[in-house]
Amino acid sequence: MRIGELSRRTGVSVPTIKYYVREGLLPAGQLTSPNQASYDQTHEQRLRLIRALLDVGGLSVAGIGAVLAAVDDPEQPVHKVLGEAAHRILPRYEEEGDAAMVAARAKVAALIERRGWLVDACEPQAEALAASLAAMTRVGAEEFADAVIEEYADAAQGVARVDLEYVARRVAREDMVRSTVVGTVLGASMLDALRRMAHVDASARVYGG
Amino acid sequence: MRIGELSRRTGVSVPTIKYYVREGLLPAGQLTSPNQASYDQTHEQRLRLIRALLDVGGLSVAGIGAVLAAVDDPEQPVHKVLGEAAHRILPRYEEEGDAAMVAARAKVAALIERRGWLVDACEPQAEALAASLAAMTRVGAEEFADAVIEEYADAAQGVARVDLEYVARRVAREDMVRSTVVGTVLGASMLDALRRMAHVDASARVYGG
Repeated sequence: MRIGELSRRTGVSVPTIKYYVREGLLPAGQLTSPNQASYDQTHEQRLRLIRALLDVGGLSVAGIGAVLAAVDDPEQPVHKVLGEAAHRILPRYEEEGDAAMVAARAKVAALIERRGWLVDACEPQAEALAASLAAMTRVGAEEFADAVIEEYADAAQGVARVDLEYVARRVAREDMVRSTVVGTVLGASMLDALRRMAHVDASARVYGG
Repeated sequence: MRIGELSRRTGVSVPTIKYYVREGLLPAGQLTSPNQASYDQTHEQRLRLIRALLDVGGLSVAGIGAVLAAVDDPEQPVHKVLGEAAHRILPRYEEEGDAAMVAARAKVAALIERRGWLVDACEPQAEALAASLAAMTRVGAEEFADAVIEEYADAAQGVARVDLEYVARRVAREDMVRSTVVGTVLGASMLDALRRMAHVDASARVYGG
């Protein structure tokens, strides 16, 4: 297909497509005449991946380049490629080591141990949980966190299982990475909205009427 | 206790405590001499609630005033008070009625119907879910959303149940409202971090080693 058709199909403007080619994110089309190039399905998929990393994952062009390099390197196992994508889209937690944070890190380590999760306590996901627990402690909600954390972990495990099952059904690495980015970022907002709706329902049942 | 002790216990500075009294958020202390007032447990609890609404819920002083008015009005049933608190801390979704949003709203209405949730499809929580589903459709992840939404809803229901059980064990309305704000906002970040950790674990099991 021509660049105009590629633009129409993906909703990405022609100048932006040319910019991605210049930046090395998108392979150039096959030249069919001195000033015309032809694009195929692989360009379309790559463009959709770039847009997901950009619009949903909030990655910079340099960050996208790093993820695409991992996707394109046949030496990289899938696990590492998905890790690279998830790593780039995670917010950084730069927490001071105050008493609340030290106690929260110990709780996270105990949770990982108790559940036998294959997660390193230093990974940013574990740091994010510690930051969240520390914030609860600081506003006097430590008791709430302790009361609900196991049920939250059960829920998270159930959700992560179906996420991975969905990703595993996809064959192309590129598509897997796109699913991971979309699932990690948009999946969180979907789960949050569902939890708030379930709160309204549960509250109406307990206190309403 | 004196204002200095109240400040030390809650971590709120003396000028800020005086500002809350002037703004009508915190009742004045009992005068024990012409220029000294005494504060008790109720002031301490109210201050913690104000800080939770401010720091965690991100409410304005006017918004806090509205929530506290609901807390203090004995005519207001608990359900309405919790609703007022949750309503104030929810982000507003101003989505245009594009095709993705129209389709997403229909999916949300069907989900509510299917699960028998006591939630109005016009409530901001339901709009938030529709906005999240529409965003997925726009990046080509509609299939993913369809594949996982029931499991996500199960997880959300489980989490909402323990949240409400915790809130219901608390006796004071004030404490209930504080738990709701903290649980709604910080609970979301805790669940998100746990889900990301469970992803690392599930991915390591499927693709690692």
